[in-house]
Amino acid sequence: MKFLLIIFSLLLFQVPSIAQVEDSMQLRRIYHEVLERGECYENLRVLCKEVGNRLSGSDNAEKAVLWGETLMKRYGFDRVYLQEIMVPKWVRGAREKLLYKDSLKTIEPAILALGGSVGTNGILNGEVIEVRNFKDLERLGEKEIQGKIVFYNRPMNPTLISTFHAYGGCVDQRHAGASEAAKYGAVATITRSMTLRNDRIPHTGSMGYKEGVKKIPAVAISTIGAYDLSEALKRNPNLSISLDLSCKSEEDVKSYNVIGEIKGKVYPEKIMVVGGHLDSWDVGEGAHDDGAGVVQSIEVLRLFKKLSIQPKHTIRCILFMNEENGNRGGKSYARLVKQKGEEHILALESDRGGFSPRGFSVDGTSAQLETVQHFEALFRPYNLHLFNKGYGGVDIGPLKNGKICLIGLVPDSQRYFDFHHASSDIWENVNERELELGAAATASMIYLIDKYGFEQGLKRATFKK
Amino acid sequence: MKFLLIIFSLLLFQVPSIAQVEDSMQLRRIYHEVLERGECYENLRVLCKEVGNRLSGSDNAEKAVLWGETLMKRYGFDRVYLQEIMVPKWVRGAREKLLYKDSLKTIEPAILALGGSVGTNGILNGEVIEVRNFKDLERLGEKEIQGKIVFYNRPMNPTLISTFHAYGGCVDQRHAGASEAAKYGAVATITRSMTLRNDRIPHTGSMGYKEGVKKIPAVAISTIGAYDLSEALKRNPNLSISLDLSCKSEEDVKSYNVIGEIKGKVYPEKIMVVGGHLDSWDVGEGAHDDGAGVVQSIEVLRLFKKLSIQPKHTIRCILFMNEENGNRGGKSYARLVKQKGEEHILALESDRGGFSPRGFSVDGTSAQLETVQHFEALFRPYNLHLFNKGYGGVDIGPLKNGKICLIGLVPDSQRYFDFHHASSDIWENVNERELELGAAATASMIYLIDKYGFEQGLKRATFKK
Repeated sequence: MKFLLIIFSLLLFQVPSIAQVEDSMQLRRIYHEVLERGECYENLRVLCKEVGNRLSGSDNAEKAVLWGETLMKRYGFDRVYLQEIMVPKWVRGAREKLLYKDSLKTIEPAILALGGSVGTNGILNGEVIEVRNFKDLERLGEKEIQGKIVFYNRPMNPTLISTFHAYGGCVDQRHAGASEAAKYGAVATITRSMTLRNDRIPHTGSMGYKEGVKKIPAVAISTIGAYDLSEALKRNPNLSISLDLSCKSEEDVKSYNVIGEIKGKVYPEKIMVVGGHLDSWDVGEGAHDDGAGVVQSIEVLRLFKKLSIQPKHTIRCILFMNEENGNRGGKSYARLVKQKGEEHILALESDRGGFSPRGFSVDGTSAQLETVQHFEALFRPYNLHLFNKGYGGVDIGPLKNGKICLIGLVPDSQRYFDFHHASSDIWENVNERELELGAAATASMIYLIDKYGFEQGLKRATFKK
Repeated sequence: MKFLLIIFSLLLFQVPSIAQVEDSMQLRRIYHEVLERGECYENLRVLCKEVGNRLSGSDNAEKAVLWGETLMKRYGFDRVYLQEIMVPKWVRGAREKLLYKDSLKTIEPAILALGGSVGTNGILNGEVIEVRNFKDLERLGEKEIQGKIVFYNRPMNPTLISTFHAYGGCVDQRHAGASEAAKYGAVATITRSMTLRNDRIPHTGSMGYKEGVKKIPAVAISTIGAYDLSEALKRNPNLSISLDLSCKSEEDVKSYNVIGEIKGKVYPEKIMVVGGHLDSWDVGEGAHDDGAGVVQSIEVLRLFKKLSIQPKHTIRCILFMNEENGNRGGKSYARLVKQKGEEHILALESDRGGFSPRGFSVDGTSAQLETVQHFEALFRPYNLHLFNKGYGGVDIGPLKNGKICLIGLVPDSQRYFDFHHASSDIWENVNERELELGAAATASMIYLIDKYGFEQGLKRATFKK
């Protein structure tokens, strides 16, 4: 009898329920609307071309806040408002130059100061010492490093299929490299850019200083620039460079998370967040990082309105400020939620580029993961196959409380670090359809979780895989 | 007892066999080698930049033959040789111009003669009539069409997830449009480019004339060009254009399929083909179409040699000539196989662009499909999920005989028609990793089918899902 039951339930799983047919049709409508009349790509063009890059604290960041607020008001969301926060302000400055002599030639590779770096306070000269990691520093010690410029040249591992894993294996050089080197008396650092491409484009990104360690300037050099410098060092181990940086940190300034919402019809007090971050680095246009997530999140709410999908829960779109160098937006929002005692059941973040979506990664209970995985079959016609336990995102991370389900949209990662934090992260390098498919996938997931909730979703009687 | 058996076999499927662990490791080695020391991207650069585009019968096509032969000889494949074939020769010619007046302005949109089109034999003038499809022609009839230039302006359907399906729903306008319009007395045709992008880049492609119908010139116009022309026609329904084309077809010329192979150790007389096509359209560099498939196919054999994988069957890499406008290479090869009575068990084609691979489509028996699907789990770490019944490819199509299994590599299709048959199909628009991942997936599939064959692969005792 037990076996019969197993066989019977296996058979049941094959038969689509009425609910599933309804859901298939709803997803089809969402995808149709986005692919035929989607507005996210044009919105991204305006954000990239009319606002441009928008580092926290910059004038452009304030323009972006106004852009986001105006756009969501124009779409007629039920409520659009700003959450005031204080953000760090770091300014690149006009002087940014690295020079060295290789044989008789003067080489001036393209560089970018890392975000948060101090300036050089005049021209800084020093011999260069190349290392692969912090263990190399330990091995070389103060004797070899004192007074020198440490050159971190460990490449991203190309054999990892997810480029995010390759990034994770390298980014310590950028983020903590300055203080680690300063401990041994280094006067500055040069870090190989975090990309898998061989090109001449430097990639910036955040770095931080350890308390009690001298703050030394830190710059990024392109992958070809790193290769050239490494070769020059082989020819002349005493090679000296000169570095001139006028970047600096200023006082914190006021800024905002931009929030728009559609009120839930059944549980208006229960919130489902969808978001990306509005700030970007100060080069390129912040198109993939994270203009894409911003316009996709707004598109989700636009789709709900356009298709007259009345959500049970309140769907809240958040354009977070300051993900790149402080995550003040994410942290402040989570604090506010706690203060207000608001109940959040879901936060879904898109911050891995506007590429062809492959699925979702779920940071939640196993019941929540199971619910999301139950929806997998509905996404198969759209070629989404990854529904795994994994990371949600930086902005939504502070919301984690053991109850809320955090989800990250997972696009194809192969090209992400071609553009990440670089001058090449521009609108032209985003494909309209790939961006739209990400918006459609996100809207579909929000629709399903809103409809079934995490408890309901698990009841196979009402939703069959 | 039967139930127990079912449960038992279900359990068995969960346990990886020793063979499966071995295979996982072999795939890992293949991917490592390609991602770390792959040569296909550099080979593609040389093909694109040093040979360039290579329409059948052109000097560049002959250069490409030499390039392919030389490269495979340099890699030391067991046998490298040419198969002589006759190919059509069509030449674009120096004059290629379309002009019309919109209000007071003279508009000269970018156009490309369709491959195979006759020239205009001097300047051709005519009023333009816009249609969506062949039914429109029928409805309008000779009365409305006689002496006019038919403008096909049906866009690709953006709501289809596979862009190839959208292409399939449109390409009749390009391929058969001239003869269909000529039946009603049209003097030329203008066809909207087969792309989902809105841009000013025209896309060419093959067209053919029906026997017994007058041959009229046919050109492609970009999507924005089509929009502009359509708008101008609304303002002036009697709008007239002038067209000047000096393209022409010449006598067939000699060319070659380029073939390299590694001899099988167990069944040298049984052949497994991997290939792409060496010819391209005469604009851009034929990077995605199909330089990608060419260098990936060569890379498969290079990988076998480099990793000392001794295949049981003979693995034959074929760089087919003339896929774009005649498929003489594919047809001639199939004829030769038949003449020689060679046994082919598999032909795998890569001709859908060098994008992130998603899986394989299988045109074979259900047993062959099942075998391929048995390998799916091994590809999951590489994010390949599509293992479906489907199309193999144009070049390998003529090999179909009810026994051979035809397989097409299926990359992500979203960006393919951004570049297809256009000046934008250049090396810079191919991502190195995406290209390499396609080569690794192809090599892995060939490795598995070579190892298990289609009969063996089905025996669950030796290979478990």
